[in-house]
Amino acid sequence: MSKDELRLLDFWASPFCMRVKIALSEKGVAYASQEEDLFGGKSDVLLKSNPIYEKVPVLLDNGKPIVESNNIVYYIDDKYPSPNPLLPSCAYGRPVHIFEGGMGIWKSKGEELEIAKKDFIEILKKLEGAMGDKDYFGGDNFGYVDVIAIAMTSWFHAYEVFGDFKVEQECPKFGCWMKRCLKRESVSSVLPDPEKIYQCVIMLRKMHGIE
Amino acid sequence: MSKDELRLLDFWASPFCMRVKIALSEKGVAYASQEEDLFGGKSDVLLKSNPIYEKVPVLLDNGKPIVESNNIVYYIDDKYPSPNPLLPSCAYGRPVHIFEGGMGIWKSKGEELEIAKKDFIEILKKLEGAMGDKDYFGGDNFGYVDVIAIAMTSWFHAYEVFGDFKVEQECPKFGCWMKRCLKRESVSSVLPDPEKIYQCVIMLRKMHGIE
Repeated sequence: MSKDELRLLDFWASPFCMRVKIALSEKGVAYASQEEDLFGGKSDVLLKSNPIYEKVPVLLDNGKPIVESNNIVYYIDDKYPSPNPLLPSCAYGRPVHIFEGGMGIWKSKGEELEIAKKDFIEILKKLEGAMGDKDYFGGDNFGYVDVIAIAMTSWFHAYEVFGDFKVEQECPKFGCWMKRCLKRESVSSVLPDPEKIYQCVIMLRKMHGIE
Repeated sequence: MSKDELRLLDFWASPFCMRVKIALSEKGVAYASQEEDLFGGKSDVLLKSNPIYEKVPVLLDNGKPIVESNNIVYYIDDKYPSPNPLLPSCAYGRPVHIFEGGMGIWKSKGEELEIAKKDFIEILKKLEGAMGDKDYFGGDNFGYVDVIAIAMTSWFHAYEVFGDFKVEQECPKFGCWMKRCLKRESVSSVLPDPEKIYQCVIMLRKMHGIE
């Protein structure tokens, strides 16, 4: 990896910057550190990358700015799942990939769609594996990763129609987890009607010139 | 809580917005939702709150914008630890409060400092409790919460000098965890010399007109 790919807007005494550097070091990832003069003048790239807070740390991934230390650590762990996964319950196949995987389905057709479908099911199977024999990704209780992942399932009906498959049949354990989560008022009251999302996806496909 | 305090820049079909709504619902927190017209025109408040990505969700907490769904869920869980903690290993006394607690120490003197010191030790004791009998906040392995928390300890020497106390004596279990983490190359190579931080804090105290 070239050092230019990852650039950290840094300040040596900031524990928030240290969080990011520890996470990068855990992953063995090379990066360039750019020390900011917080008491003198901040760099243009800092003012441009984090215009609201003008705060370090900012991680630039090929120029794309990621802000706020907790968020950057999460981003690093998601981009480099190994070695040393930091959020172990979803070390392999993070929920974020569900949406990307699903996009592969609704944005394609024919042979391409078949490949996207296989990839998508593969992502869910990895998540199933990460859950092990627990009820939730968070263990015995509905937790952070469950919140992140269950929201993604609101689009599953649309994926299933376009991909001609059933998540429950392909990944029964994942299906059970979905049902378990949907029993929670917080989830069932928030997720919209799957049919409405399906209609929305039909519109998106038209906008993207598919079919 | 007044509905005006929390405002969500929302889009009904976005699973990223659903994450935030599920988390708010888990906490039983009231909020106002502002539906954005992503295909027509985005609101000024969205463009202003998230100028880089111009993306929903944005959570406005009394006007202060929090961006990116993972980050917002973390923020909500930190601000409202109960009911239903989402990141259970640090449900009570989140690492973020270490820095705020420490600031109470170095920004004060006299009686005020004594109160700040007690508060700070209380925060560490709660964190100890959250760790239970595990080696790390992440369980058997160094994980996300460990990264977030250990970075904060780089300022402890300064707190100890100004507060005239020793973390290791007050919170021996927390002290053991610190030593365990410091054995990791990723941590020891990143944390700066405590004496340098102490000098930095002396300068900060002068800048703030303390002593």
